[in-house]
Amino acid sequence: MEDEEPEVAVFIPPLNFSAVTKGVYRSGYPNKKNIPFLKKLGLKSVLYLCPEEHALQDWFTRSGIQVFQYGIKGNKEPFVDIPEEVVKEALEKLLDVRNHPIIIHCNKGKHRTGCVVGCLRKVQNWSLTSIFDEYRRFAGSKVRILDQQFIELFALEPLLPPLEWRPAWLRPA
Amino acid sequence: MEDEEPEVAVFIPPLNFSAVTKGVYRSGYPNKKNIPFLKKLGLKSVLYLCPEEHALQDWFTRSGIQVFQYGIKGNKEPFVDIPEEVVKEALEKLLDVRNHPIIIHCNKGKHRTGCVVGCLRKVQNWSLTSIFDEYRRFAGSKVRILDQQFIELFALEPLLPPLEWRPAWLRPA
Repeated sequence: MEDEEPEVAVFIPPLNFSAVTKGVYRSGYPNKKNIPFLKKLGLKSVLYLCPEEHALQDWFTRSGIQVFQYGIKGNKEPFVDIPEEVVKEALEKLLDVRNHPIIIHCNKGKHRTGCVVGCLRKVQNWSLTSIFDEYRRFAGSKVRILDQQFIELFALEPLLPPLEWRPAWLRPA
Repeated sequence: MEDEEPEVAVFIPPLNFSAVTKGVYRSGYPNKKNIPFLKKLGLKSVLYLCPEEHALQDWFTRSGIQVFQYGIKGNKEPFVDIPEEVVKEALEKLLDVRNHPIIIHCNKGKHRTGCVVGCLRKVQNWSLTSIFDEYRRFAGSKVRILDQQFIELFALEPLLPPLEWRPAWLRPA
C-alpha cells in the first residue's frame, strides 16, 4: 500500500505535531491521512504510549519502523498514576540516537506525551518554568496539575546510553 | 564575557521557545539568562523580526552568530500590514542550510514569528488547518485573524536555494 499513494498536494501532520529536539518529534495519534507526512520524517521508531495495539502497525512493519510500546493510562485524578518505572524505560529508548528519528505519541499528544517530553526536558536540565510552559502549550485548556506534579517529582534517572549512541544535545560540551 | 559564566545548573530557553524543523528554532526575545541555553543550540544565525537594534548584538558578534534583521511592525488591525516582500526575503535566509541552525524571533514569539513560520509551513506544503493549529498554539489567547489571513494569502514564492544548500526537508524525495 505504501507505494500506491499519489503525489500529495498537501501534507497533513498528525494532531498536535511538533519537533521536540533534533531527531525527536511529538504528536497526537497519527492516522492514514498523515502517512505521506510521516514518510517525510524518515522515522526509525515510534514511542507509543497507549495500551491498545497500534492502528498503523501494518504500515510501520512494512516501512521498517520499530514501535516501542509503553502502554500508560492517562493521569486521571485522583486514582490513576503514571508509573515512573515505565516512563524511565521509555526515556531510555528515547535518548538512544540509534532509535532516531523517533516520534512520541499518545491519543491527543497532550498528557502522556506531555509527561514524557517534560521528563526529557528534565534530563536536558531545563528550568521547571520552561518545562511547564511547554506542557501547557500542548495541553491547552486541558492542563492536568497531576501531570505537572509527576514531571516535577520524577526522580528516576534514565540510564544514559554510552557516548557514541547519545544525541549531540546530551553530550558534555 | 561569554567565558565568564559558571557551569549552569539549569537551562532557561527563551519565552515560547520551540524547535520548528531540523536546523530551525523559534522563540520570543532572548535575554542574557538564555545565553547558556542558546550556546547549546550551536546557532549560526538569527532571523530577527523587530526594527530595534538587538539587545544581544554584542554577544552574537563575539560568538560569530550572524543576525539577519527584518524589522517588521506587528500586524495591528486595521492599519499596519506585514509586508509580503520582507517576509519573502526573510524566508530566503531561513531556507538556506548554510545559515542553519537558525532561530527566528520577535518580541513574544507569537505574531511576527508565527507569520514567518506559517509561511515556512506553506513552503513545506502543510495543510492550512495544521498551519493555523500551530500558529494558535503559540499565540494562545492573542490569536490575530489578520495574521492567519496573511499566511493564507501569502503568495510570493521564496527563491529556493540551489539543491546543495537546501535542507533535506526541502529536497525532492
